[in-house]
Amino acid sequence: MKNIITISRELGSGGRSIGKLVANRIGIPYYDRELIDEAAKESGLSIKYVENCEQRATNSFLYNFVMSSSYGFGILQGANNQTLPLTEQIYLAQRKVIEKFANAGSCVIVGRCADYILKDRDDVLRVFIYSDMNTRIRHSIDAYGMSKMTAQEEIEHSDRERSRHYSVFTDQKWGDRHNYDVLLNSGILGYGNCAKIICSLTGTIS
Amino acid sequence: MKNIITISRELGSGGRSIGKLVANRIGIPYYDRELIDEAAKESGLSIKYVENCEQRATNSFLYNFVMSSSYGFGILQGANNQTLPLTEQIYLAQRKVIEKFANAGSCVIVGRCADYILKDRDDVLRVFIYSDMNTRIRHSIDAYGMSKMTAQEEIEHSDRERSRHYSVFTDQKWGDRHNYDVLLNSGILGYGNCAKIICSLTGTIS
Repeated sequence: MKNIITISRELGSGGRSIGKLVANRIGIPYYDRELIDEAAKESGLSIKYVENCEQRATNSFLYNFVMSSSYGFGILQGANNQTLPLTEQIYLAQRKVIEKFANAGSCVIVGRCADYILKDRDDVLRVFIYSDMNTRIRHSIDAYGMSKMTAQEEIEHSDRERSRHYSVFTDQKWGDRHNYDVLLNSGILGYGNCAKIICSLTGTIS
Repeated sequence: MKNIITISRELGSGGRSIGKLVANRIGIPYYDRELIDEAAKESGLSIKYVENCEQRATNSFLYNFVMSSSYGFGILQGANNQTLPLTEQIYLAQRKVIEKFANAGSCVIVGRCADYILKDRDDVLRVFIYSDMNTRIRHSIDAYGMSKMTAQEEIEHSDRERSRHYSVFTDQKWGDRHNYDVLLNSGILGYGNCAKIICSLTGTIS
Protein backbone atom coordinates (compact mmCIF):
# COMPACT_ATOMS: atom_id res chain seq x y z
CA MET A 1 0.00 0.00 0.00
CA LYS A 2 1.43 3.35 -1.07
CA ASN A 3 0.82 5.67 1.86
CA ILE A 4 4.03 7.71 1.85
CA ILE A 5 3.85 10.44 -0.77
CA THR A 6 6.93 12.21 -2.04
CA ILE A 7 6.30 15.39 -4.00
CA SER A 8 8.99 16.80 -6.26
CA ARG A 9 8.04 20.04 -7.95
CA GLU A 10 9.02 22.95 -10.12
CA LEU A 11 9.14 26.36 -8.41
CA GLY A 12 5.81 28.13 -8.92
CA SER A 13 3.89 24.97 -9.79
CA GLY A 14 2.05 24.81 -6.45
CA GLY A 15 3.63 21.54 -5.31
CA ARG A 16 3.58 22.65 -1.67
CA SER A 17 -0.06 23.72 -1.76
CA ILE A 18 -1.01 20.42 -3.39
CA GLY A 19 1.02 18.48 -0.82
CA LYS A 20 -0.76 20.31 2.02
CA LEU A 21 -4.17 19.64 0.43
CA VAL A 22 -3.34 15.93 0.24
CA ALA A 23 -2.01 15.74 3.81
CA ASN A 24 -5.09 17.58 5.16
CA ARG A 25 -7.53 15.49 3.15
CA ILE A 26 -6.04 12.15 4.21
CA GLY A 27 -5.15 13.39 7.69
CA ILE A 28 -1.42 12.60 7.65
CA PRO A 29 1.66 14.70 8.50
CA TYR A 30 3.16 17.07 5.93
CA TYR A 31 6.96 17.46 6.01
CA ASP A 32 8.66 20.38 4.33
CA ARG A 33 10.11 23.04 6.62
CA GLU A 34 10.50 20.32 9.29
CA LEU A 35 13.17 18.68 7.15
CA ILE A 36 15.38 21.74 7.52
CA ASP A 37 14.90 21.97 11.29
CA GLU A 38 15.47 18.27 11.88
CA ALA A 39 18.46 18.11 9.53
CA ALA A 40 20.00 21.02 11.42
CA LYS A 41 19.55 19.14 14.72
CA GLU A 42 20.91 15.96 13.17
CA SER A 43 24.01 17.59 11.68
CA GLY A 44 24.75 20.09 14.41
CA LEU A 45 24.65 22.96 11.89
CA SER A 46 22.49 26.04 12.32
CA ILE A 47 18.97 26.12 10.82
CA LYS A 48 19.90 29.27 8.91
CA TYR A 49 22.93 27.58 7.42
CA VAL A 50 21.02 24.47 6.36
CA GLU A 51 18.33 26.70 4.87
CA ASN A 52 20.81 28.74 2.83
CA CYS A 53 22.90 25.81 1.84
CA GLU A 54 20.34 23.26 0.66
CA GLN A 55 19.70 23.04 -3.04
CA ARG A 56 22.55 25.36 -3.98
CA ALA A 57 25.57 24.67 -6.14
CA THR A 58 26.16 21.38 -4.40
CA ASN A 59 28.93 20.06 -6.55
CA SER A 60 31.10 23.10 -6.37
CA PHE A 61 34.22 22.88 -4.27
CA LEU A 62 34.48 26.64 -4.38
CA TYR A 63 30.92 27.00 -3.10
CA ASN A 64 31.63 24.63 -0.23
CA PHE A 65 34.83 26.45 0.55
CA VAL A 66 33.26 29.90 0.52
CA MET A 67 30.24 28.74 2.55
CA SER A 68 32.49 26.97 5.06
CA SER A 69 34.58 30.10 5.54
CA SER A 70 31.67 32.52 5.82
CA TYR A 71 29.97 30.36 8.44
CA GLY A 72 33.20 29.78 10.31
CA PHE A 73 33.45 26.02 9.76
CA GLY A 74 36.20 24.09 8.14
CA ILE A 75 35.35 20.87 6.31
CA LEU A 76 33.65 18.76 8.99
CA GLN A 77 34.05 15.12 9.87
CA GLY A 78 31.43 12.68 8.55
CA ALA A 79 29.70 10.11 10.77
CA ASN A 80 32.14 7.41 9.73
CA ASN A 81 35.11 9.68 10.22
CA GLN A 82 35.44 10.59 6.58
CA THR A 83 35.90 14.21 5.69
CA LEU A 84 32.76 15.36 3.91
CA PRO A 85 31.84 18.65 2.22
CA LEU A 86 29.13 20.52 4.12
CA THR A 87 26.44 20.20 1.45
CA GLU A 88 26.94 16.46 1.52
CA GLN A 89 26.65 16.43 5.31
CA ILE A 90 23.37 18.27 5.03
CA TYR A 91 22.14 15.78 2.42
CA LEU A 92 23.09 12.87 4.69
CA ALA A 93 21.36 14.49 7.66
CA GLN A 94 18.20 15.10 5.61
CA ARG A 95 18.31 11.54 4.31
CA LYS A 96 18.37 10.24 7.87
CA VAL A 97 15.43 12.47 8.82
CA ILE A 98 13.42 11.43 5.74
CA GLU A 99 14.01 7.74 6.52
CA LYS A 100 12.92 8.36 10.11
CA PHE A 101 9.71 10.12 9.05
CA ALA A 102 8.93 7.38 6.51
CA ASN A 103 9.49 4.68 9.11
CA ALA A 104 7.05 6.45 11.43
CA GLY A 105 4.13 5.96 8.97
CA SER A 106 1.97 7.67 6.33
CA CYS A 107 3.08 11.18 5.39
CA VAL A 108 3.68 13.72 2.61
CA ILE A 109 7.33 14.72 2.04
CA VAL A 110 8.13 17.65 -0.23
CA GLY A 111 11.43 17.89 -2.14
CA ARG A 112 14.90 16.92 -0.87
CA CYS A 113 15.35 13.92 -3.23
CA ALA A 114 12.90 11.95 -1.05
CA ASP A 115 11.73 9.94 -4.08
CA TYR A 116 15.31 8.70 -4.55
CA ILE A 117 16.08 8.24 -0.86
CA LEU A 118 12.99 6.04 -0.40
CA LYS A 119 13.18 4.34 -3.81
CA ASP A 120 13.64 0.83 -2.40
CA ARG A 121 10.40 0.96 -0.40
CA ASP A 122 7.15 -0.42 -1.84
CA ASP A 123 4.93 1.98 0.08
CA VAL A 124 6.00 5.21 -1.63
CA LEU A 125 4.03 7.09 -4.30
CA ARG A 126 6.46 9.32 -6.19
CA VAL A 127 4.76 12.44 -7.58
CA PHE A 128 6.16 15.25 -9.73
CA ILE A 129 4.24 18.53 -10.08
CA TYR A 130 5.04 20.89 -12.95
CA SER A 131 3.46 23.64 -14.99
CA ASP A 132 4.02 25.91 -17.96
CA MET A 133 6.28 28.95 -17.53
CA ASN A 134 3.50 31.58 -17.74
CA THR A 135 1.48 29.93 -14.98
CA ARG A 136 4.60 29.58 -12.81
CA ILE A 137 5.46 33.27 -13.30
CA ARG A 138 1.89 34.31 -12.45
CA HIS A 139 1.97 32.14 -9.32
CA SER A 140 5.31 33.62 -8.21
CA ILE A 141 4.06 37.18 -8.73
CA ASP A 142 0.91 36.44 -6.69
CA ALA A 143 2.57 34.41 -3.93
CA TYR A 144 5.82 36.32 -3.41
CA GLY A 145 5.05 39.74 -4.86
CA MET A 146 7.90 39.47 -7.37
CA SER A 147 8.15 41.47 -10.58
CA LYS A 148 7.60 39.46 -13.77
CA MET A 149 11.28 39.62 -14.70
CA THR A 150 12.48 38.62 -11.24
CA ALA A 151 9.97 35.78 -11.17
CA GLN A 152 11.20 34.37 -14.48
CA GLU A 153 14.86 34.68 -13.40
CA GLU A 154 14.14 32.98 -10.07
CA ILE A 155 12.28 30.14 -11.78
CA GLU A 156 15.07 29.53 -14.29
CA HIS A 157 17.66 29.68 -11.50
CA SER A 158 15.65 27.29 -9.37
CA ASP A 159 15.27 24.81 -12.26
CA ARG A 160 19.03 24.80 -12.78
CA GLU A 161 19.79 24.41 -9.06
CA ARG A 162 17.19 21.71 -8.36
CA SER A 163 18.33 19.82 -11.42
CA ARG A 164 22.00 20.05 -10.41
CA HIS A 165 21.31 19.16 -6.77
CA TYR A 166 19.22 16.13 -7.76
CA SER A 167 21.72 14.80 -10.26
CA VAL A 168 24.67 15.23 -7.87
CA PHE A 169 23.04 13.20 -5.11
CA THR A 170 20.98 10.69 -7.08
CA ASP A 171 22.87 10.28 -10.36
CA GLN A 172 19.43 10.58 -12.01
CA LYS A 173 17.81 13.35 -14.05
CA TRP A 174 15.45 15.66 -12.18
CA GLY A 175 11.95 15.59 -13.70
CA ASP A 176 12.66 12.49 -15.84
CA ARG A 177 9.36 10.61 -15.89
CA HIS A 178 11.00 7.27 -15.12
CA ASN A 179 11.90 8.43 -11.60
CA TYR A 180 8.25 9.04 -10.71
CA ASP A 181 4.89 7.21 -10.68
CA VAL A 182 2.77 10.16 -11.77
CA LEU A 183 3.56 13.61 -13.18
CA LEU A 184 0.82 16.25 -13.05
CA ASN A 185 0.58 19.55 -14.89
CA SER A 186 -0.98 21.70 -12.17
CA GLY A 187 -1.43 24.66 -14.53
CA ILE A 188 -3.85 22.62 -16.64
CA LEU A 189 -5.38 20.27 -14.08
CA GLY A 190 -5.65 22.70 -11.14
CA TYR A 191 -4.45 22.07 -7.59
CA GLY A 192 -7.71 20.39 -6.54
CA ASN A 193 -7.60 17.80 -9.32
CA CYS A 194 -3.93 17.08 -8.63
CA ALA A 195 -4.68 16.50 -4.94
CA LYS A 196 -7.69 14.34 -5.82
CA ILE A 197 -5.62 12.12 -8.11
CA ILE A 198 -2.89 11.69 -5.48
CA CYS A 199 -5.44 10.91 -2.76
CA SER A 200 -7.19 8.39 -5.04
CA LEU A 201 -3.90 6.53 -5.53
CA THR A 202 -2.81 6.59 -1.92
CA GLY A 203 -3.59 3.34 -0.22
CA THR A 204 -5.35 1.89 -3.29
CA ILE A 205 -2.31 0.47 -5.08
CA SER A 206 0.26 -1.92 -3.67
CA MET B 1 -14.23 20.83 -21.28
CA LYS B 2 -11.52 18.35 -22.11
CA ASN B 3 -13.28 15.52 -23.92
CA ILE B 4 -10.73 14.67 -26.60
CA ILE B 5 -8.00 12.47 -25.16
CA THR B 6 -4.67 12.02 -26.90
CA ILE B 7 -2.55 9.14 -25.63
CA SER B 8 1.16 9.04 -26.37
CA ARG B 9 2.91 5.99 -25.05
CA GLU B 10 6.05 3.90 -24.80
CA LEU B 11 5.95 0.51 -26.53
CA GLY B 12 4.96 -2.16 -23.99
CA SER B 13 3.44 0.30 -21.52
CA GLY B 14 -0.17 -0.66 -22.30
CA GLY B 15 -1.15 2.73 -23.72
CA ARG B 16 -3.51 1.14 -26.23
CA SER B 17 -5.24 -1.04 -23.63
CA ILE B 18 -5.65 1.98 -21.36
CA GLY B 19 -7.01 4.05 -24.27
CA LYS B 20 -9.57 1.34 -25.04
CA LEU B 21 -10.61 1.11 -21.39
CA VAL B 22 -11.18 4.86 -21.31
CA ALA B 23 -13.12 4.91 -24.60
CA ASN B 24 -15.32 2.00 -23.47
CA ARG B 25 -15.95 3.47 -20.04
CA ILE B 26 -16.94 6.90 -21.34
CA GLY B 27 -18.60 5.51 -24.45
CA ILE B 28 -16.65 7.46 -27.07
CA PRO B 29 -14.79 6.37 -30.23
CA TYR B 30 -11.23 5.01 -30.02
CA TYR B 31 -8.93 5.87 -32.96
CA ASP B 32 -5.74 3.95 -33.56
CA ARG B 33 -5.72 1.58 -36.53
CA GLU B 34 -8.36 3.83 -38.16
CA LEU B 35 -5.75 6.57 -38.49
CA ILE B 36 -3.73 4.37 -40.83
CA ASP B 37 -6.74 3.41 -42.97
CA GLU B 38 -8.04 6.96 -43.22
CA ALA B 39 -4.61 8.42 -43.90
CA ALA B 40 -4.16 5.90 -46.70
CA LYS B 41 -7.47 7.01 -48.24
CA GLU B 42 -6.56 10.66 -47.76
CA SER B 43 -3.10 10.37 -49.33
CA GLY B 44 -3.88 7.84 -52.05
CA LEU B 45 -1.12 5.55 -50.73
CA SER B 46 -1.73 1.90 -49.88
CA ILE B 47 -2.65 0.91 -46.30
CA LYS B 48 0.35 -1.41 -46.20
CA TYR B 49 2.67 1.36 -47.24
CA VAL B 50 1.33 3.82 -44.66
CA GLU B 51 1.57 1.10 -42.01
CA ASN B 52 5.19 0.32 -42.81
CA CYS B 53 6.20 3.88 -43.27
CA GLU B 54 4.75 5.62 -40.25
CA GLN B 55 7.04 6.19 -37.29
CA ARG B 56 10.17 5.09 -39.11
CA ALA B 57 13.32 7.05 -39.80
CA THR B 58 11.33 10.03 -40.92
CA ASN B 59 14.14 12.48 -41.35
CA SER B 60 16.26 10.31 -43.54
CA PHE B 61 16.47 11.17 -47.19
CA LEU B 62 17.95 7.74 -47.85
CA TYR B 63 15.00 6.09 -46.10
CA ASN B 64 12.52 8.07 -48.21
CA PHE B 65 14.45 7.24 -51.34
CA VAL B 66 14.64 3.51 -50.60
CA MET B 67 10.99 3.33 -49.55
CA SER B 68 9.90 5.28 -52.62
CA SER B 69 11.81 2.93 -54.93
CA SER B 70 10.69 -0.28 -53.28
CA TYR B 71 7.06 0.77 -53.41
CA GLY B 72 7.33 2.02 -56.96
CA PHE B 73 6.65 5.70 -56.26
CA GLY B 74 8.81 8.65 -56.95
CA ILE B 75 8.62 11.69 -54.69
CA LEU B 76 4.93 12.66 -54.91
CA GLN B 77 3.30 16.04 -55.24
CA GLY B 78 1.90 17.66 -52.07
CA ALA B 79 -1.63 19.07 -51.88
CA ASN B 80 -0.37 22.57 -52.62
CA ASN B 81 1.77 21.37 -55.47
CA GLN B 82 4.99 21.29 -53.49
CA THR B 83 7.17 18.24 -53.79
CA LEU B 84 7.04 16.44 -50.44
CA PRO B 85 8.83 13.35 -49.15
CA LEU B 86 6.44 10.44 -48.65
CA THR B 87 6.74 10.31 -44.86
CA GLU B 88 5.76 13.96 -44.74
CA GLN B 89 2.76 13.29 -46.99
CA ILE B 90 1.65 10.56 -44.61
CA TYR B 91 2.06 12.91 -41.66
CA LEU B 92 -0.02 15.58 -43.41
CA ALA B 93 -2.73 13.05 -44.29
CA GLN B 94 -2.84 11.77 -40.68
CA ARG B 95 -2.97 15.34 -39.40
CA LYS B 96 -6.00 16.02 -41.58
CA VAL B 97 -7.70 12.83 -40.33
CA ILE B 98 -6.91 13.64 -36.67
CA GLU B 99 -8.36 17.14 -37.08
CA LYS B 100 -11.47 15.66 -38.70
CA PHE B 101 -11.98 13.14 -35.88
CA ALA B 102 -11.43 15.84 -33.23
CA ASN B 103 -13.92 18.14 -34.95
CA ALA B 104 -16.49 15.34 -34.90
CA GLY B 105 -16.53 15.25 -31.06
CA SER B 106 -15.28 13.35 -27.99
CA CYS B 107 -12.78 10.57 -28.73
CA VAL B 108 -9.55 8.83 -27.74
CA ILE B 109 -6.66 9.16 -30.23
CA VAL B 110 -3.55 7.04 -29.79
CA GLY B 111 -0.11 8.18 -31.02
CA ARG B 112 0.65 10.02 -34.28
CA CYS B 113 1.68 13.31 -32.62
CA ALA B 114 -2.02 14.03 -31.94
CA ASP B 115 -1.11 16.00 -28.78
CA TYR B 116 0.93 18.38 -30.96
CA ILE B 117 -1.50 18.49 -33.87
CA LEU B 118 -4.36 19.47 -31.53
CA LYS B 119 -2.28 21.64 -29.19
CA ASP B 120 -4.20 24.84 -29.93
CA ARG B 121 -7.55 23.37 -28.86
CA ASP B 122 -8.80 23.83 -25.29
CA ASP B 123 -10.75 20.58 -25.26
CA VAL B 124 -7.80 18.17 -25.43
CA LEU B 125 -6.36 16.19 -22.50
CA ARG B 126 -2.80 15.20 -23.40
CA VAL B 127 -1.76 11.95 -21.70
CA PHE B 128 1.59 10.11 -21.77
CA ILE B 129 1.78 6.47 -20.61
CA TYR B 130 5.16 4.96 -19.70
CA SER B 131 6.63 2.20 -17.61
CA ASP B 132 9.91 0.71 -16.43
CA MET B 133 11.90 -1.45 -18.84
CA ASN B 134 11.28 -4.78 -17.06
CA THR B 135 7.51 -4.33 -17.10
CA ARG B 136 7.62 -3.32 -20.77
CA ILE B 137 9.69 -6.40 -21.65
CA ARG B 138 7.31 -8.67 -19.73
CA HIS B 139 4.31 -7.09 -21.49
CA SER B 140 5.93 -7.55 -24.92
CA ILE B 141 6.75 -11.20 -24.19
CA ASP B 142 3.15 -11.86 -23.06
CA ALA B 143 1.43 -9.85 -25.80
CA TYR B 144 3.56 -10.63 -28.83
CA GLY B 145 5.32 -13.89 -27.83
CA MET B 146 8.77 -12.30 -28.25
CA SER B 147 11.95 -13.61 -26.65
CA LYS B 148 13.32 -11.42 -23.85
CA MET B 149 16.23 -10.22 -25.98
CA THR B 150 14.03 -9.43 -29.00
CA ALA B 151 11.57 -7.59 -26.74
CA GLN B 152 14.29 -5.37 -25.31
CA GLU B 153 15.72 -4.65 -28.75
CA GLU B 154 12.27 -3.82 -30.14
CA ILE B 155 11.53 -1.51 -27.23
CA GLU B 156 14.82 0.36 -27.56
CA HIS B 157 14.33 0.61 -31.33
CA SER B 158 10.77 1.88 -30.85
CA ASP B 159 11.89 4.52 -28.32
CA ARG B 160 14.47 5.83 -30.77
CA GLU B 161 12.03 5.86 -33.70
CA ARG B 162 9.11 7.44 -31.83
CA SER B 163 11.43 10.04 -30.39
CA ARG B 164 12.90 10.86 -33.81
CA HIS B 165 9.50 10.92 -35.54
CA TYR B 166 8.02 13.20 -32.89
CA SER B 167 10.93 15.65 -32.92
CA VAL B 168 11.01 15.84 -36.73
CA PHE B 169 7.34 16.78 -37.00
CA THR B 170 6.78 18.75 -33.81
CA ASP B 171 10.19 20.25 -33.00
CA GLN B 172 9.51 19.12 -29.43
CA LYS B 173 10.98 16.32 -27.31
CA TRP B 174 8.94 13.12 -27.14
CA GLY B 175 8.01 12.28 -23.54
CA ASP B 176 9.01 15.73 -22.20
CA ARG B 177 6.51 16.43 -19.41
CA HIS B 178 5.81 19.95 -20.63
CA ASN B 179 4.11 18.62 -23.77
CA TYR B 180 1.49 16.73 -21.73
CA ASP B 181 -1.08 17.34 -18.99
CA VAL B 182 -0.55 14.08 -17.14
CA LEU B 183 2.09 11.32 -17.33
CA LEU B 184 1.24 7.96 -15.79
CA ASN B 185 3.55 5.05 -14.91
CA SER B 186 1.30 2.14 -15.85
CA GLY B 187 3.76 -0.42 -14.44
CA ILE B 188 3.25 1.03 -10.95
CA LEU B 189 -0.32 2.34 -11.14
CA GLY B 190 -1.87 -0.47 -13.21
CA TYR B 191 -4.02 -0.03 -16.33
CA GLY B 192 -7.25 0.31 -14.32
CA ASN B 193 -5.98 3.19 -12.20
CA CYS B 194 -4.55 4.95 -15.27
CA ALA B 195 -7.92 4.67 -17.03
CA LYS B 196 -9.73 5.85 -13.88
CA ILE B 197 -7.54 8.96 -13.61
CA ILE B 198 -8.04 9.83 -17.28
CA CYS B 199 -11.81 9.33 -17.03
CA SER B 200 -11.97 11.45 -13.88
CA LEU B 201 -10.27 14.34 -15.71
CA THR B 202 -12.30 14.09 -18.89
CA GLY B 203 -15.09 16.61 -18.93
CA THR B 204 -14.30 17.88 -15.42
CA ILE B 205 -11.65 20.47 -16.31
CA SER B 206 -11.97 23.30 -18.76
